[in-house]
Amino acid sequence: MTPPKDLIDTLRREDDFLIAAHMNPDGDAIGSALALAAALEAVGKRVSIVDRDPIPQHYRFLPNVEKFHTLSDLSGTGISLERCTNLILVDCNDITRVVADKAVAGRFSCRNAIVIDHHATPSSFGTVRWIVPDAAATALLILEIIDALSIMLTADMATLLYAALIVDTGNFRFENTDAKVLRVAARLTEAGADPASISRALFEAWTSARFALFSRFLDTVELSERIVTSVVTNRMLQETGATSDQTETFVEFLKRMQDADVAVLITELEKDHYKLSMRAKGTVNVAKVAEAFGGGGHANAAGCRIRAGLDEVKRMVRARIVESMRVK
Amino acid sequence: MTPPKDLIDTLRREDDFLIAAHMNPDGDAIGSALALAAALEAVGKRVSIVDRDPIPQHYRFLPNVEKFHTLSDLSGTGISLERCTNLILVDCNDITRVVADKAVAGRFSCRNAIVIDHHATPSSFGTVRWIVPDAAATALLILEIIDALSIMLTADMATLLYAALIVDTGNFRFENTDAKVLRVAARLTEAGADPASISRALFEAWTSARFALFSRFLDTVELSERIVTSVVTNRMLQETGATSDQTETFVEFLKRMQDADVAVLITELEKDHYKLSMRAKGTVNVAKVAEAFGGGGHANAAGCRIRAGLDEVKRMVRARIVESMRVK
Repeated sequence: MTPPKDLIDTLRREDDFLIAAHMNPDGDAIGSALALAAALEAVGKRVSIVDRDPIPQHYRFLPNVEKFHTLSDLSGTGISLERCTNLILVDCNDITRVVADKAVAGRFSCRNAIVIDHHATPSSFGTVRWIVPDAAATALLILEIIDALSIMLTADMATLLYAALIVDTGNFRFENTDAKVLRVAARLTEAGADPASISRALFEAWTSARFALFSRFLDTVELSERIVTSVVTNRMLQETGATSDQTETFVEFLKRMQDADVAVLITELEKDHYKLSMRAKGTVNVAKVAEAFGGGGHANAAGCRIRAGLDEVKRMVRARIVESMRVK
Repeated sequence: MTPPKDLIDTLRREDDFLIAAHMNPDGDAIGSALALAAALEAVGKRVSIVDRDPIPQHYRFLPNVEKFHTLSDLSGTGISLERCTNLILVDCNDITRVVADKAVAGRFSCRNAIVIDHHATPSSFGTVRWIVPDAAATALLILEIIDALSIMLTADMATLLYAALIVDTGNFRFENTDAKVLRVAARLTEAGADPASISRALFEAWTSARFALFSRFLDTVELSERIVTSVVTNRMLQETGATSDQTETFVEFLKRMQDADVAVLITELEKDHYKLSMRAKGTVNVAKVAEAFGGGGHANAAGCRIRAGLDEVKRMVRARIVESMRVK
């Protein structure tokens, strides 16, 4: 896993970079982009960072996070995604993951378009591409680049890369956690990353309102036919004072139930209109279930929306999942 | 962190060992005991393993777990805690942590009593003692012993030590997670431990009864003065069909509450008799709080027992914690 020569040469030769992460940025995108920026700045480069969307609250503790601009911030600065000198896409490999507007790709005229990513999605965007689908996180690639450029790993860079790494490995619980991931985590810790405080900030800083919502959510758990469902209504949000984005990891929690093969979180959008988040443990393809209702996703994680009353929504989705279980 | 010479010499010289872990054994006790047994057996020693209590269900996936005997199993085998040739206490440092019956200590007549532990609780039990309070887990000491004895680390030993390590570091989320812990985890993974499947088996295989108990437990959450308390009563166990060992990680969950500095799980043992598990986030030393009630532990994780009514227990422990907050 050594960075290609043309990537390292380009980073060495050029002086101005615009780093762009994918829309709705996650920890790996944010941490990798900020760490790469810090590294390039450490050797005298000028770097800007951009994302379509603002950085979510639970990532705001990261060092230098204020360096992220939104696309709308950029207008008037003279910096442009389409006409920058050197664009670097981080944690994605196509410009359409940065801006939904496909017309941008057509207007594109940067001198170099560098891609650093670990997603296998097919694409041909970029003049210098380093895509390693086997890498557990883009953060691992950024660390290789830092080493290849002989840049000293600072505590800030280590913190950013550690955060990126634990978001993409579920804090070393996902299948992609291997000896290499753990060894890099050890090195980052030695360089100044603090495992306990980073994981606490990322995963364990729940407001009392979120706690109360979680408790109410667990009270709605229903298990039958190896399908567990749970519900978050607008009334529950109002009564606890929590916000809908605070349900982020709730459906993952349902997967702990060993008697369930599929977990479904049903979130009320408005009266008789629900958002469904589904998680499977490998025996049911929930993407197929979601597609039946106009949604989509991956085999083990998918979503859709259904307009119906709550009981009817539960009945419909359960029936579809049971059917998928039979087909298999 | 090198094992003392008298410990290594004793393990080399002797042939028969009885390994004993503390009552209500946790992952570090179970994994460390089984890994040490496997290592000693690999060099031709005869080893038995004992615990007062049966192994909790969620540890039954561990390799060789059937080697654990309960104290009552031992009667009639000729093996005795008090008159074995070589006793090894693992993950505890006093015989009263193995058997509540203090009379045993008086009758004690083993040739060698070896102690391998990382708890700081004062004690003088044992003829050969290796206690390293700075070690994140007893598992780290067992690995040092395996290396000092030049025993090859097998995949089974690695799995046992990995499980022990992630139980005592909260899967690398607790303050005791440092570069050494992560580097050992990498080495264990290389030797055959599977991070994803071990953490799934330990933390994510909840029975429906445990789920129901967890939901009831969350309903009892009370937060004030940055202390969060929660209760598990015998009635809640009866009504959900869960067992008391299934509460193991509940107190950790309470730490997510960002408005709390200390989390306390109060578990009913019998009428007006409660077990308290406390967790702190670094600002209060809960070992001191536990010691005030005759218990002990670490600065960030400690426990004790109190005989009183539930409201009185809550009042007493809250008062003691608030006092500790002021002292600091």
